[in-house]
Amino acid sequence: MAETQTVYGIHAAQSLLKSNPGRILNVWLDRQRNDQKLQQIKQSIDELGIRIEYADKKTLEKLSAGGNHQGVLMSVRLPQELTEQALKKAVTEHAGNAFYLVLDQVTDPHNLGACLRTALAAGVQGIIVPKDNACRLNATVCKVASGAADVLPVYRVTNLVRVLKWLKSAGVWLSGAAGEAEMTVFDAELTGSVAIVMGAEGKGLRQLTQQQCDQLIKIPMADSVESLNVSVATGVILYEVLRQNRSV
Amino acid sequence: MAETQTVYGIHAAQSLLKSNPGRILNVWLDRQRNDQKLQQIKQSIDELGIRIEYADKKTLEKLSAGGNHQGVLMSVRLPQELTEQALKKAVTEHAGNAFYLVLDQVTDPHNLGACLRTALAAGVQGIIVPKDNACRLNATVCKVASGAADVLPVYRVTNLVRVLKWLKSAGVWLSGAAGEAEMTVFDAELTGSVAIVMGAEGKGLRQLTQQQCDQLIKIPMADSVESLNVSVATGVILYEVLRQNRSV
Repeated sequence: MAETQTVYGIHAAQSLLKSNPGRILNVWLDRQRNDQKLQQIKQSIDELGIRIEYADKKTLEKLSAGGNHQGVLMSVRLPQELTEQALKKAVTEHAGNAFYLVLDQVTDPHNLGACLRTALAAGVQGIIVPKDNACRLNATVCKVASGAADVLPVYRVTNLVRVLKWLKSAGVWLSGAAGEAEMTVFDAELTGSVAIVMGAEGKGLRQLTQQQCDQLIKIPMADSVESLNVSVATGVILYEVLRQNRSV
Repeated sequence: MAETQTVYGIHAAQSLLKSNPGRILNVWLDRQRNDQKLQQIKQSIDELGIRIEYADKKTLEKLSAGGNHQGVLMSVRLPQELTEQALKKAVTEHAGNAFYLVLDQVTDPHNLGACLRTALAAGVQGIIVPKDNACRLNATVCKVASGAADVLPVYRVTNLVRVLKWLKSAGVWLSGAAGEAEMTVFDAELTGSVAIVMGAEGKGLRQLTQQQCDQLIKIPMADSVESLNVSVATGVILYEVLRQNRSV
């Protein structure tokens, strides 16, 4: 059986119904509640032809492991990961203003989820991850991403170096984050079609990945700090891309 | 008995010995290991007059709950929080280039720890938190902060509104993060003496806190995203302050 995820709460339910209703497998509603927002959710689910099970508060509390379910809970399929082919198509469509995030060897699901949420907020068009030594889109990732995994395409590629080479040939400028870089992110040119390449916390980019980058950039940091959390570092760099491009 | 924290690993031990050795209560070293880095740590501890207990690998693994102890483990006092009086002294000393972070009602220890780490990296001089409805500096905060809690002063104040008023009178420009703000962080003036005021995730700033701010700023975000994690949002705003001030 495929892995499923539990989604609960008004906002999460509304967001999923809007962005990716095909993922919904089962729905439970609190039989004692009947406010307007739950009514609207019920109507959307009815329109999808999905059967609703009515349960008492206690059952919902159990199913959500004590979470703030607000009267609605769903079991859902995990979002689908996309292929290298789909990536090439998407990048070609965004020619001139492509904005991608490459995560090399991020294995922690909390970090991947937080990066997804941050990347979506900053306007990234998709995330590229390697097949090996990287976290899959599991239930923890989706929970931490707070719905971003439903909206933001995640491309899982077999050979990351080959894909980076292809991106360069397609006119995408590759900037790799590296603590040992000489140029800060604020001095770097980050306009036009860009992909930001981030490595795993503590380990950084692999040699072969780093070699593909057009430039290496660092976030200036106080001496006493070893590194930033990867989702915070990702946020700082992606928002600098956004800042530079809005003033172009 | 005061709450203590367990610190382990070569880097964490070195960092604590450098920044705040007074916090160290007890030290355990692996009796089977004797590499150079452990030797140096042993010497520093001897100089402090702290008695070392030698233990086997199994005991260290148990004490660190399976963590990567690398042969050294310490039980330490939690860092001390500072008072309003100490804050006033420090701000006065930084006249003209004060850089503070105010966290209003951040109650989650992971978020507080991550904000500490991010703030230290970005060059913040201190963090201001209210006495009520805010997380204390506990063991989880210190662990997530990866040593930042030893270096960065945390000021715990009784009346946050009063302190914000005092900061303004001392020439510190207060910028509050608010999703409903019209001005983005990139359009805001953030040079000179500044304090960034962040609210809790999901809740934002309290009315009274918001009213004290000289300006409200927002991070531009894709429509489908409700909010950023508070440590990511803090990182984006603090690094925009850093960016604007380095080019002054």
